[in-house]
Amino acid sequence: MSATPKKNLMLFSGRAHPELAEQVAKELDVTITPQAAYSFANGEIFVRFEESVRGCDAFVLQSHSAPINDAIMEQLIMVDALKRASAKRITVVMPFWGYSRQDKKHRGREPISARLVADMFKVAGANRIMTIDLHTAQIQGFFDGPVDHLFALPVLADYIKKTYSDRELAVVSPDSGRVRLAERWAETLGGTPLAFIHKTRDPRKPNEATANRVVGEIEGRTCVVIDDMIDTGGTVAKTVEVLMQDGAAEVIVAATHGVLSGAATKRLASCGAREVIFTDTLPIPDPKRFPHMTVLPIAPLLARAIHEVFDDGSVTSLFNGNA
Amino acid sequence: MSATPKKNLMLFSGRAHPELAEQVAKELDVTITPQAAYSFANGEIFVRFEESVRGCDAFVLQSHSAPINDAIMEQLIMVDALKRASAKRITVVMPFWGYSRQDKKHRGREPISARLVADMFKVAGANRIMTIDLHTAQIQGFFDGPVDHLFALPVLADYIKKTYSDRELAVVSPDSGRVRLAERWAETLGGTPLAFIHKTRDPRKPNEATANRVVGEIEGRTCVVIDDMIDTGGTVAKTVEVLMQDGAAEVIVAATHGVLSGAATKRLASCGAREVIFTDTLPIPDPKRFPHMTVLPIAPLLARAIHEVFDDGSVTSLFNGNA
Amino acid sequence: MSATPKKNLMLFSGRAHPELAEQVAKELDVTITPQAAYSFANGEIFVRFEESVRGCDAFVLQSHSAPINDAIMEQLIMVDALKRASAKRITVVMPFWGYSRQDKKHRGREPISARLVADMFKVAGANRIMTIDLHTAQIQGFFDGPVDHLFALPVLADYIKKTYSDRELAVVSPDSGRVRLAERWAETLGGTPLAFIHKTRDPRKPNEATANRVVGEIEGRTCVVIDDMIDTGGTVAKTVEVLMQDGAAEVIVAATHGVLSGAATKRLASCGAREVIFTDTLPIPDPKRFPHMTVLPIAPLLARAIHEVFDDGSVTSLFNGNA
Amino acid sequence: MSATPKKNLMLFSGRAHPELAEQVAKELDVTITPQAAYSFANGEIFVRFEESVRGCDAFVLQSHSAPINDAIMEQLIMVDALKRASAKRITVVMPFWGYSRQDKKHRGREPISARLVADMFKVAGANRIMTIDLHTAQIQGFFDGPVDHLFALPVLADYIKKTYSDRELAVVSPDSGRVRLAERWAETLGGTPLAFIHKTRDPRKPNEATANRVVGEIEGRTCVVIDDMIDTGGTVAKTVEVLMQDGAAEVIVAATHGVLSGAATKRLASCGAREVIFTDTLPIPDPKRFPHMTVLPIAPLLARAIHEVFDDGSVTSLFNGNA
Amino acid sequence: MSATPKKNLMLFSGRAHPELAEQVAKELDVTITPQAAYSFANGEIFVRFEESVRGCDAFVLQSHSAPINDAIMEQLIMVDALKRASAKRITVVMPFWGYSRQDKKHRGREPISARLVADMFKVAGANRIMTIDLHTAQIQGFFDGPVDHLFALPVLADYIKKTYSDRELAVVSPDSGRVRLAERWAETLGGTPLAFIHKTRDPRKPNEATANRVVGEIEGRTCVVIDDMIDTGGTVAKTVEVLMQDGAAEVIVAATHGVLSGAATKRLASCGAREVIFTDTLPIPDPKRFPHMTVLPIAPLLARAIHEVFDDGSVTSLFNGNA
Amino acid sequence: MSATPKKNLMLFSGRAHPELAEQVAKELDVTITPQAAYSFANGEIFVRFEESVRGCDAFVLQSHSAPINDAIMEQLIMVDALKRASAKRITVVMPFWGYSRQDKKHRGREPISARLVADMFKVAGANRIMTIDLHTAQIQGFFDGPVDHLFALPVLADYIKKTYSDRELAVVSPDSGRVRLAERWAETLGGTPLAFIHKTRDPRKPNEATANRVVGEIEGRTCVVIDDMIDTGGTVAKTVEVLMQDGAAEVIVAATHGVLSGAATKRLASCGAREVIFTDTLPIPDPKRFPHMTVLPIAPLLARAIHEVFDDGSVTSLFNGNA
Repeated sequence: MSATPKKNLMLFSGRAHPELAEQVAKELDVTITPQAAYSFANGEIFVRFEESVRGCDAFVLQSHSAPINDAIMEQLIMVDALKRASAKRITVVMPFWGYSRQDKKHRGREPISARLVADMFKVAGANRIMTIDLHTAQIQGFFDGPVDHLFALPVLADYIKKTYSDRELAVVSPDSGRVRLAERWAETLGGTPLAFIHKTRDPRKPNEATANRVVGEIEGRTCVVIDDMIDTGGTVAKTVEVLMQDGAAEVIVAATHGVLSGAATKRLASCGAREVIFTDTLPIPDPKRFPHMTVLPIAPLLARAIHEVFDDGSVTSLFNGNA
Repeated sequence: MSATPKKNLMLFSGRAHPELAEQVAKELDVTITPQAAYSFANGEIFVRFEESVRGCDAFVLQSHSAPINDAIMEQLIMVDALKRASAKRITVVMPFWGYSRQDKKHRGREPISARLVADMFKVAGANRIMTIDLHTAQIQGFFDGPVDHLFALPVLADYIKKTYSDRELAVVSPDSGRVRLAERWAETLGGTPLAFIHKTRDPRKPNEATANRVVGEIEGRTCVVIDDMIDTGGTVAKTVEVLMQDGAAEVIVAATHGVLSGAATKRLASCGAREVIFTDTLPIPDPKRFPHMTVLPIAPLLARAIHEVFDDGSVTSLFNGNA
Repeated sequence: MSATPKKNLMLFSGRAHPELAEQVAKELDVTITPQAAYSFANGEIFVRFEESVRGCDAFVLQSHSAPINDAIMEQLIMVDALKRASAKRITVVMPFWGYSRQDKKHRGREPISARLVADMFKVAGANRIMTIDLHTAQIQGFFDGPVDHLFALPVLADYIKKTYSDRELAVVSPDSGRVRLAERWAETLGGTPLAFIHKTRDPRKPNEATANRVVGEIEGRTCVVIDDMIDTGGTVAKTVEVLMQDGAAEVIVAATHGVLSGAATKRLASCGAREVIFTDTLPIPDPKRFPHMTVLPIAPLLARAIHEVFDDGSVTSLFNGNA
Repeated sequence: MSATPKKNLMLFSGRAHPELAEQVAKELDVTITPQAAYSFANGEIFVRFEESVRGCDAFVLQSHSAPINDAIMEQLIMVDALKRASAKRITVVMPFWGYSRQDKKHRGREPISARLVADMFKVAGANRIMTIDLHTAQIQGFFDGPVDHLFALPVLADYIKKTYSDRELAVVSPDSGRVRLAERWAETLGGTPLAFIHKTRDPRKPNEATANRVVGEIEGRTCVVIDDMIDTGGTVAKTVEVLMQDGAAEVIVAATHGVLSGAATKRLASCGAREVIFTDTLPIPDPKRFPHMTVLPIAPLLARAIHEVFDDGSVTSLFNGNA
Repeated sequence: MSATPKKNLMLFSGRAHPELAEQVAKELDVTITPQAAYSFANGEIFVRFEESVRGCDAFVLQSHSAPINDAIMEQLIMVDALKRASAKRITVVMPFWGYSRQDKKHRGREPISARLVADMFKVAGANRIMTIDLHTAQIQGFFDGPVDHLFALPVLADYIKKTYSDRELAVVSPDSGRVRLAERWAETLGGTPLAFIHKTRDPRKPNEATANRVVGEIEGRTCVVIDDMIDTGGTVAKTVEVLMQDGAAEVIVAATHGVLSGAATKRLASCGAREVIFTDTLPIPDPKRFPHMTVLPIAPLLARAIHEVFDDGSVTSLFNGNA
Repeated sequence: MSATPKKNLMLFSGRAHPELAEQVAKELDVTITPQAAYSFANGEIFVRFEESVRGCDAFVLQSHSAPINDAIMEQLIMVDALKRASAKRITVVMPFWGYSRQDKKHRGREPISARLVADMFKVAGANRIMTIDLHTAQIQGFFDGPVDHLFALPVLADYIKKTYSDRELAVVSPDSGRVRLAERWAETLGGTPLAFIHKTRDPRKPNEATANRVVGEIEGRTCVVIDDMIDTGGTVAKTVEVLMQDGAAEVIVAATHGVLSGAATKRLASCGAREVIFTDTLPIPDPKRFPHMTVLPIAPLLARAIHEVFDDGSVTSLFNGNA
C-alpha cells in the first residue's frame, strides 16, 4: 500500500504567554491547536490535545516566564504528550531559555541548570529547539540536536537607528561579561565607541568598598546600555546613574528579554534612562509597563523562522548567514 | 598508589518539607549537609553545597508538595549539582512521587507524566529512587534502575489496630480502582469484610445522573476508608456520607499522602468521619489540621530504609519480604 | 537531486499466529512480505526478508503465544533485520503483550519483565508499539515512544449486548484487582450492577483457610465474568462456581486474550458457564475449543488501526477519543 | 555516617545447566544463591531471589542450550531482577554465546542476532560479560563494556597432547572459515601441518555439483578436526569421511561447544572418528553421549576467571597474556 | 499549514580524496556542496557549509587515508555540523573503514578501535554508514543502525576474468585468516583451486624459526593473491616469493584497498608479481604507482549504491542478493 | 565470598607530552603504567597496556597538542582499551581541551566541535574529565558527568605579583571577549585598572578599514596582556604594539596554554613585550622558546587535583571554593 506523504504544521501554545502565540499564529496564518490544560490544586499540570496530532510537524511555544518552573514543566508535559501521540517532529520554541544564566559552575558544587533544561527536553521527546538571544551562545551546544538560535538585535538596533538617527551614540555593556555583545551592537549601529562598567576595588582608595567605573569614552554621548535580559534592573539602574555622573548626554536601555522581577519596573522607570526598550519574548503585562518603555513585537521573527524550518528553508538567511 | 575506600552517607534536603528531613537526620544521627538554596524573583532556583560531596553516598530528600513543580525542579537541580560535584551514588528520596496519578493515558493524546518524572531524574543523574506507597506499583517500572518502594500501610494499620481494637471493622475503597489495596488492608487488619463505592448510572432510574452505591456489607461496622492519597477530599467526603447513609456505625479515613489541596481540610473536618489519619510524607502545616486529624511520623521508616540501602542490607526485610 | 518521497506500507508476520496476519492483510488489501524464517535444531531462529524493505513503513505482527519466548525472540530478530535493512519506521504489533502480568514487583527481588520486553524492542529498533487490552494501562509508559493501545472491549460488549439483550446482567470481576475494568464494562453495558470476588480469611471462622466471597449483588442475574486474559482458567472456573452457589441465574465469561494453558480448556468447558467468549489475539486452535466457546475476530480492529497509523489518521477516533 | 565497604561475590544460576553451576560453585567454595524460578504454562518465566542481593558482585551463569530462547530470556530476567534489587555489579556468564553464528549479514536483509543478544543484556542491566571461545572474536566488540573472553583451547589441546603424544598429528579445519583457528591449534600442538576442507565445484568435472576437497597434506597422519562448536554434526562427519578417503591414519574431533542438535550424536558416533572431544560449556546429557566421546570439565576455568574478576586480578594472565 | 515534502540529495566531501568525490558527483550528476574547510596551525579542523542543508538527505564521503586521524576527525566534524544544521538524514560514506584491522582484542588490554569508530560516528549524528569490503564482515554489527556493505570483488574479478581468461588460475590467501575470502574469489572465478600461506615452525626442523609454507596446489598456475587491503606490502611480497619458489607460473595481486604505507610501492613493484590491482577507495597518487599497477575506479559502484539508498531502491540487488 | 575492596590509582600517559606525565608521576610518587603505543604507517594508532588494569582508578593524561587529532584519537583509544580491560573509573586528564575555541556556532552551519570532543570521550568510556582554563567555562556543561575545571591563573598571577611587585600594573584583554577574564586578573592582582582592545571601524574616518583602539586607561603603566591561550600570536603582538603606542610603560604577556603555531614564537619574541609567560599544559620544546619567555610548571597543580579526586577530597578547596 503506497501513498504520498503530507507534512502538516501544527502550532501549540502553553499558558505562559498566550498573546505571543496568537500573534505567531496570525503571522503564519494557522490556528493554535486546541487543548485542555489546567493545573491541579497542588500544582500538577495536565494537558490533552483536542485534535489528532499524528504525523504533524509540531511547534510548541512557551515563554519561560515566572513562575518559571511551571512554564518549563508544562512545556515538557506537552512534548511528552506529543511524542506519545505520534507527532512526527517536535520543535520546542522557547523565546527565552529558562535557567540560561546558570550555564556554568561559577564556583564548585553548583549545577549547570541550562544543560539540565536541554537534557530534560531531549528526554521528553524534543527533536529540536528554537530560541532567541541566548545568555551565552555556548548553550546551543548543551542540546544534542539542532538549535535554531535567532537574534533580536537587528529588531532592537533598527528601532534605535531609526529613532535616534541624529544622536552621537556610544554602546555600553553594564559589566565586563557582555563587552563582546556590546561590540556587535557597536558594529551594527555603524561603528560607535564602546564602554563597559568595571566593578572594582579602587586601588588608590584602599579603605573603600567596590566601585563601578566606566571604562571607555562616553562623555557627551547618547549611551545605549545593552544586555540580553534585564531581571531585577539593579545593575542597569546603577549603570545609568554612573553614566550620567560621568557625563553621558542621555542613556537608552535595550534588552531582548524583559524578565522584570520584583522592583525592576520601579527601578527602570526612575533610573533616569530616556527610553527602555524590550521585545516581548516574555510577557510584559500592563502593570510592569511605564511611559518611556517600548516593547517591540517578536512574533514576526518567530513566525518567519518557524516557516523556514517547516519548509526546509534557511534560518541562517534571515540573519545574513550569522544564525 | 593504593588505599582502602571509605563510604560516606550524606543527607541532602530540598526546601519543601524541612521538618521531615530534620527528623530523618535525627533518626540516622547525621547532619543535613548545609547548602545555599534560594529562588530568584522569576522563580529560577539556585543550589550550592557548602561542603565537599566528592565520593559520598548521597540521599536527596524532597517532598513533592505544592507548589509541586518548584519542588521537583529543586530536587532535579540538586541531583545535577551532585553529579557534577562527583557524588558516588545519588538516591532520590521522594516520599510522594509527583504526578503519580498521571501514570497512563486515560484518553488519547495525554502525557504519561509519572514516566516523564522518572526520566528527568535519570537524565539529571539519579542512580536510584526511594518512594512510599505509589499510586500504582507499576510506576516502579518507569525508572530504569532500582526503586525502593516502601509501604506506609503497616504504620497506619498498626495505629488503627491499636486504637480500634474493640470495633468490628470493614475496609472500604472509595472507588473501583483501589479495591486491591483495600483487600490488602482487610488482610492486614485480620480478615475484615470489604466494600467499595461504585459510581454508576442507576439502571432503574434512567433519568437520573450517576449515583454512588456501596458494593459490599458495611452495616453496623466501623468503616475504614482507605486511599493512597487524598487531594481535594471530595471523593472521600462523599464516601463517608454514603457509608453513614447505608448504615455504617462510624467511619475512619486513612491515607498515606495528605495532599490536601483547596477545601480539603474543610471537607474532611466536616464530613462526619470520626478520625482522619495521614502520615507526614507531605508537609501538613497547622492551618491544614483539625481536631480529629492524626498525623503519624514517617521519618522512622525512611531512616531505616536509608540505613539499609547505605549498609547493603535488605529493604525487603522491613516488610517481611514484600517490598 | 530532488524527488518526491513515497511512503509504502509493508506487513510482516512472525510464525506464531499466521491466520491472524492473513486476515489483517486481507482487511488491508496488502500481501504479507515473503520471508525465510526457520528455527535451527537448538532453537536459534533465523529470518531473512525476500524483498527490499528499504524506506518502508513496516508493521511487524506477532502474537506472543506459547512457546512465548520463541515468539518474542522471533519478533525481536525481525525488528533487528528491518532496522539494518533500512526500514523507515518499524511498528511492533503485539496483540497480546507478553509478560504483561509481571508489570511490577509483587514482592522484593522480582523482575519487571513487562518493562524488559519494552526495552528489548526499543533496543532492537522498534519505533512504536501497537497492542490490545494491556493487563494494566500503565504498561504503555514502559515504552519510550508511542504506544497505540487498542480496546477489544467494544467488540466483546457489542456481541454480549446483541446476544443477551433480554437478560438482567451483572458484571463480575474475578478478583479485587479488576474491579475498575468491570466498572468500565458495566458502564458500556448500560449501567449494570457490579460485583467482585473477595479472597479472604473469613473472620467469623478463624480456623478455616481462605474463602472466596462475592461482594455485590448478583442474585437472579446473568453474570458476565470479565477479564483481560484467561490463562489456566482456575480463577474463572472458581468464580463461576461461587456465583452459581450465590444465586446467579447464569454465567457468561468474556476475556480479550485466550492464553488457555494446560487444563484451561477442560476447566472452562466444564465450569458451568453458559458461554465463554474470547477474541483471537492469540491463536486458539481447534483442540482448545469447545461447543459453547465463541471466538470473535480481532483482525478488523487491527487493520483499521494500522491504516490510521500509516495514514496519519486518528487511532483515538476509533474509540470515541478514549485510546 | 561513614563505613568501610565490603564486596560480596554471589553466584546465580539459570535452569539450563545446573550441574555446571554446581561445579563452579564448588570450585569457588560458594553456594548458589537460592531462587524461585519457574515457567508458566504459556512459557513465561518467573524468577525471584530468596536472599538479599543488595550491593553484591553478581555472577549470573546460564548455558545457552536448547531451548535456547528460554535460556536467554531466563538469564535476561535474572539480570533485570538483580538490577532492580540493587546488585552492585552484574556479570553475565554465558559459556556459549547464543546466536553467535549470526554475527554478520551473510546476505542482505538478515539480522545480526549476536549483536542483538549483546544489546538485550546491556539494556537489561548487565555490566560485563564472560564467555568462552566465541564463534568470531569480533563479537566481543558487540557489547558496550568489558567482555572476558576465555579460551578452552588449552584444555582441549592439553588433553590431546597427553593422549596422543606418540602420533604424527595434523590439524584440519572443516571449512575455509576456521583456518586461522586451526593454525592456532597447530602452533599449540607444536607446529603440526595444517589442512582444510574446500567446498568447491570441481573445475575439471563441470557437470557435477560441489565437492569437498582436502587442501593440505594429511596422508598417514592422525588428523585433529577442530571447531568452536558442533551443531548437527553434518559438516564434521563429512570431513572425517573425506580425510579417511584421502589417506588419514585416523581422525580425532575436538570442539569447545557441543550443541549436538538432532542427529548429531548418531552422526558423530558412526562417522569413523576415533574420539570426539568436547567441553561441558553446554549440557551433554547421557542420551547424547557415546562410547568414544570425551567431555572435559570447563568449571575450573570459569571458576578461576570469576575469581580473578571478583578480586581485580588478571584474566589475561590465565592465558599467558592472550585473553 | 500543509505541504508535500521534497527529498533532496546533497553530496559532501572531506579533503582526503577529492578526486573520488568528483567522480561520484559526476556519476550521480550532482554538485558537491561547497564548504569552507581548513586546518588551523595546531591541526584543529574547521568546516562550514556554504549552502543551506536543512532537510537534505546528506551523503558525506571521506576516504580514511593517511593521515587517517585527520580524515576521520574531519568527517566527524562534518557530521556534527550537518546534524546541527538540520540535515534530515546523514549517511557516512567511508569506502575504507579506518581502524578496521583493530576489530577485536588480539590479546588482553587492547582496544577495539573499529567499534570506537562506529560509536564516534553514531554520537556525532550519523544515521547510516556505507562502506566497502570490511576487513571482517562482523564490523557491520559494530554500528547501531543500517550499514550498506558494498563489495568490490565483482569489479576486481571481472577485470581478472577478462584479462586472464586464457590462464589456469589458482586463488591464494596470504595468510590463514583470509581463506574464506579466497574461497569466495575462487567461486567467482569459476571454481579454481585454492591455497594459503601457513606461517609455521617446521616441526621437522626444530632449530629453525618460522617458515612460510604453501598449503594447496599451485604448481604451474597463475596465482591470484587476494586480500582486502595491502598496507606495507611485506606479507604480499613474501607470498609472491614463496609462490614462485613453489612453482607458480606467475602471480597476480588483487586487493580492494591500497593503503600503501612506507615502502609498500617499492616492495610491490619489485616483488615479482606480473600485475598488482587495486580500486581507488583510497587515493593512490602518482608517486605510489608503478608500471604494472592497475587501479580500477570505484566511483560507479558508490554512485549506484548512493542512488539506491536515496531512492529507497535495493542495494542488495546490486550484488545479486548478497549485500 | 566476601572481601574488602582496594582502590588503586594508575596513571597513563599518551605520547603527546611525556615530560608533563613524568613530572605528574613524580609529584604523585607513582609510576606511569607501561604500555605499547605506536602508529602504523597510515597513521592508525595502537595501544596495549602491559600490566593488568582491572579495577583500577585510571587517570589518562594527554596534552592536546599538534598534531591534535592524533593526540585526541590516541587518548580515545586508551580510554576504550581501559574500559574493555575493566578499569573501575576512568578520568580523562586533558590540560588543554582540544577544539575548545569551536564552542559555539559563530555563524550558521558550523559544528560545535568542543561538544563533539566531550561526546566522543563519553562514548569511549570516560567517567570524568579534568582540564585547565577552558576557553569558556560553559564547555564544562558539554560533558555529561563531572568535570574538574582547574585554574592556572593563581600560578601565573603569583609569579607576576612576585616579579613585578614594584610596578603600577594594568590588565589588558586583547579583545572584547576576554574582558571578564581580565577583570578576574585585575582583582587577583589587587584591583588594578582594566582595558581592552576594541576592533572597530572608526566612525570618524569612514573610508578606513578597522582599527584597534585601546578602551581604558593604560598610560604609564606596566600592562599585563592576558589570555587563556596564544596560538599564532598575531592578536597579542598587535595588542602589545597598540599598547606601547598609546603610552604603556612596558608590556607583559601571560597565558595558560602556549599553542604557539606557525610564526608564533617569532612574533612573540619580537613584539616588544618585556616578558611572555606560559604554563606547560602544552609542550613547548626548545625551538619554540626565546630568552624572555618564562614557562611555569603545571604538574604540581595537576598532581594535587588528581590526588584529591582519588582520595575523595576537595578540588574546590584548591581554589578557595571557586573550582
